Amino acid sequence: MSILVVGSVALDSVETPFGQRDRVLGGSATYFSTSASFFTDVNLVAVVGEDFPEEHTQFLKSRNIDLTGLSRVAGETFHWKGRYGFDLNEAQTLETHLNVFESFKPVIPAQYADAEYLILANIDPELQMEVLNQVKNPKVVACDTMNFWISSKPDALRKVIAKADFFIINEGEARQLSGEANLVKAARAILAMGVKNLIVKRGEYGVLLFSGHSVFAAPAYPLEEVFDPTGAGDTFAGGFMGYLANTGDLSEDGVRQAIIFGSVMASFNVEAFSLDRLKTLSYQEIEARYRAFKRMTHFEGLGEV
Amino acid sequence: MSILVVGSVALDSVETPFGQRDRVLGGSATYFSTSASFFTDVNLVAVVGEDFPEEHTQFLKSRNIDLTGLSRVAGETFHWKGRYGFDLNEAQTLETHLNVFESFKPVIPAQYADAEYLILANIDPELQMEVLNQVKNPKVVACDTMNFWISSKPDALRKVIAKADFFIINEGEARQLSGEANLVKAARAILAMGVKNLIVKRGEYGVLLFSGHSVFAAPAYPLEEVFDPTGAGDTFAGGFMGYLANTGDLSEDGVRQAIIFGSVMASFNVEAFSLDRLKTLSYQEIEARYRAFKRMTHFEGLGEV
Repeated sequence: MSILVVGSVALDSVETPFGQRDRVLGGSATYFSTSASFFTDVNLVAVVGEDFPEEHTQFLKSRNIDLTGLSRVAGETFHWKGRYGFDLNEAQTLETHLNVFESFKPVIPAQYADAEYLILANIDPELQMEVLNQVKNPKVVACDTMNFWISSKPDALRKVIAKADFFIINEGEARQLSGEANLVKAARAILAMGVKNLIVKRGEYGVLLFSGHSVFAAPAYPLEEVFDPTGAGDTFAGGFMGYLANTGDLSEDGVRQAIIFGSVMASFNVEAFSLDRLKTLSYQEIEARYRAFKRMTHFEGLGEV
Repeated sequence: MSILVVGSVALDSVETPFGQRDRVLGGSATYFSTSASFFTDVNLVAVVGEDFPEEHTQFLKSRNIDLTGLSRVAGETFHWKGRYGFDLNEAQTLETHLNVFESFKPVIPAQYADAEYLILANIDPELQMEVLNQVKNPKVVACDTMNFWISSKPDALRKVIAKADFFIINEGEARQLSGEANLVKAARAILAMGVKNLIVKRGEYGVLLFSGHSVFAAPAYPLEEVFDPTGAGDTFAGGFMGYLANTGDLSEDGVRQAIIFGSVMASFNVEAFSLDRLKTLSYQEIEARYRAFKRMTHFEGLGEV
């Protein structure tokens, strides 16, 4: 089953302790789409400006991402400039130029209106709701957000959350949204807002999945070289939803496997700047790292009582 | 097989966002011993002052901990005073009074000299080496330390590390000791110092076990109520070594199970002040939480290729 992704496509300037890159391919929907494209067909809805390089369009096409919904309008592409220190867990934003993204009104092409798997990347929650209103009967909706929307549009955000199957945010955002310092209490408060499952991203510490009835803890893959964490969360979400859409298995087992595939994708993405690592990645490498996650986490049970 | 534990017994004054306690039972060897006592017999070598309450001695005896090696000398017991903020990950030390612990020279009673399982809790590495010299032929040696010894006695510490089977430290200490910001590189550097296995404690994020050939990632148990993190690391190490000593199984599988049992013990310990939770804990509860860890981390593999 194909996936519909709505979010940002950007040109990023990124500085890490290991180097810097100017105006490279970025944006939440870009990472989502590219990551998901290893598992299923992807339809992308986003906007770019006249300066968006043709090579990036070609790359997205090479991943079989359908660009019918990618509008190119007058003006400049969304540009983000950020820097990471040695701990690499948090970016310092140096500049944000919304440019053409400022007036982005997502219009879902008629042929995508039946989308069963929908990813609402980090955009204004009012726009996320407009997207939801244009998609007839999605089977699975995943939703991301950021601290800015949590503080500026909490009511609009809560309406979106209540319609999501998977709400994917980081640890700090979970605490901010719930007002709870304890993560288990934070998760319970967010689930009470109506979302079916909460996925809490913890950077190098992995992710936690909270459902009404269970918790699943997945580590991150311990890497010797982390070059650029930009897009790790979006890459995680793309792998997660891509795998779910591919299998259609929404059981607890299926969702847990999808979380590991998401973690695998994120672990590759941070190994190079921008989407460079995903550009050379093979499905064989993905499966090999999935097996490494399995070896890394396995321990024997106690047997029956 | 019994365990020999050498370290501190203390009276702690602790303040957390949830309350405070004055001069309650504490000390690394106390947490180690009590935790290990759920799995095997424990012999304790430490020192207390004349003010050490009889009820604490009675409690340790009630856990079947052999106190032949616990000297009571003139002066006051080691006293630590600390405070935790809402994040609970790091204590702020307000006061440290070494008292009788300042002149502690561990003397291993003759009947312990054949100990096969030895825990060197966080004390001066020169004293750790003196203990090692008094124990004839230990089968498994676990060793802890702290930032103070890493900066003040790095050479003495390295000599101890080279003789340890398991070196158990926290993330910040691993980075400090190795001079590497990246944890995988830090682990490799520490393994190169001669220790067989490195266990890195990451507080609420769990632990990582690095051996020459593999990595094992174990999460912490997500708790809704964390009252007092004091002694969590020592309680982890006690459960870990206690289980190893109980089974004698030093295979990769056995060591991984021991790490989960250690994590289980730590998860209980932080639920109440001091050792209060361990005082009411049953082995049935320990096994039940072990099973919860298994459920929380399990995911399906990909099958054979």
